[in-house]
Amino acid sequence: MNNQLIQLNADYAAAIDDDRLEDWPGFFTEECLYRVTTRDNHRRGMPAGLIYADSRGMLADRVLSLRKANVYEAQGYRHLVGVPRILEGSAQTALKVCTPFLVMRIDRQGFTDVFATGQYLDEVVSEGEAMLFKSRDVVCDSSRIDTLLAIPL
Amino acid sequence: MNNQLIQLNADYAAAIDDDRLEDWPGFFTEECLYRVTTRDNHRRGMPAGLIYADSRGMLADRVLSLRKANVYEAQGYRHLVGVPRILEGSAQTALKVCTPFLVMRIDRQGFTDVFATGQYLDEVVSEGEAMLFKSRDVVCDSSRIDTLLAIPL
Amino acid sequence: MNNQLIQLNADYAAAIDDDRLEDWPGFFTEECLYRVTTRDNHRRGMPAGLIYADSRGMLADRVLSLRKANVYEAQGYRHLVGVPRILEGSAQTALKVCTPFLVMRIDRQGFTDVFATGQYLDEVVSEGEAMLFKSRDVVCDSSRIDTLLAIPL
Repeated sequence: MNNQLIQLNADYAAAIDDDRLEDWPGFFTEECLYRVTTRDNHRRGMPAGLIYADSRGMLADRVLSLRKANVYEAQGYRHLVGVPRILEGSAQTALKVCTPFLVMRIDRQGFTDVFATGQYLDEVVSEGEAMLFKSRDVVCDSSRIDTLLAIPL
Repeated sequence: MNNQLIQLNADYAAAIDDDRLEDWPGFFTEECLYRVTTRDNHRRGMPAGLIYADSRGMLADRVLSLRKANVYEAQGYRHLVGVPRILEGSAQTALKVCTPFLVMRIDRQGFTDVFATGQYLDEVVSEGEAMLFKSRDVVCDSSRIDTLLAIPL
Repeated sequence: MNNQLIQLNADYAAAIDDDRLEDWPGFFTEECLYRVTTRDNHRRGMPAGLIYADSRGMLADRVLSLRKANVYEAQGYRHLVGVPRILEGSAQTALKVCTPFLVMRIDRQGFTDVFATGQYLDEVVSEGEAMLFKSRDVVCDSSRIDTLLAIPL
């Protein structure tokens, strides 16, 4: 089970880093929850601080906006994703999973810096062969998040 | 065997990053060895350069001091841990394992920097279902380590 | 199969980070391809931008040069390698594999910075018990690569 989760996370990260953003909504169930917030907000029970989407369609819209704004292509990203820890659940229902991440950003001039660190708090379900995110809360460690709005994490 | 080691390292890192420091001594055997040193010192055969503890009780004391000093909560940490390599041994006796790590620090203002890189040199034993560290030498790549004294690595 | 790839990458990275450079050519087949390039060059179909070697002997020569120049020992490196994704192939023939990486550099003064991020694009084959790189294209995210020439990635 854990090997599948590891692979899911690797595929998810590669879709973003390879600039295949159009594949990104396909990692979620049709009805889903995708939220980006900060650790401080999360502790205070405010998980939807920065980005909120509750369907694959909303995620696809988000990608369209990014393509139009042309923000994304100006820079590159590189995810390093840690090992998922299954907190509860079974493959029959949803798995609650917690996974640390580090995202580096490479700007147009070639300078590399830390874009974000944090953890994914996920609910993962099986649909046929695939594992999909029913919900993914991206909890960033830092509260400095101006630019976080730009890309999927 | 390696999957268990991967999970052990993930759980260990999460306890620290989630600020569940009181869980940290539980990753070690009752009599144990926890040492933090630098690569240079380690090469010179001086493994106990910075931090030394030889029992679960000493590790617990260390956590108490951190809580009193209130240093820890002022900032956040994020471990990214690589894949353990088994150097020798078997599950019956102790496994000698070597695992690379990167620890980022997120300060109060939300600035993120590299806190430490290095490798864990471990002896891991099985007690019932669990795997525990009989010894963990944290060998930091850098010799700049003033602040290293603060938190478990 | 994937567990073996994960281990291969961990062993490869450790050989470099532990300064066992002489072991590095042994991760490749006798006739091989080792190339370092940038993402921009790779996209333009110019994979051999920076470093090119097509045999174990050439890789060994490279290590000899590094030892003579004494560049390598002046600093330390730390690889964090992500999860390999098998793109195509089987163990009978060659596996095409894609694996993200982050390399930190620790300089003589102990300052740590990001040396490179990117991905390995590999062809991996089995020779007896071992898995070897028939080809490894190191595709760096950044175009700032002056110093990349120094060490194996």
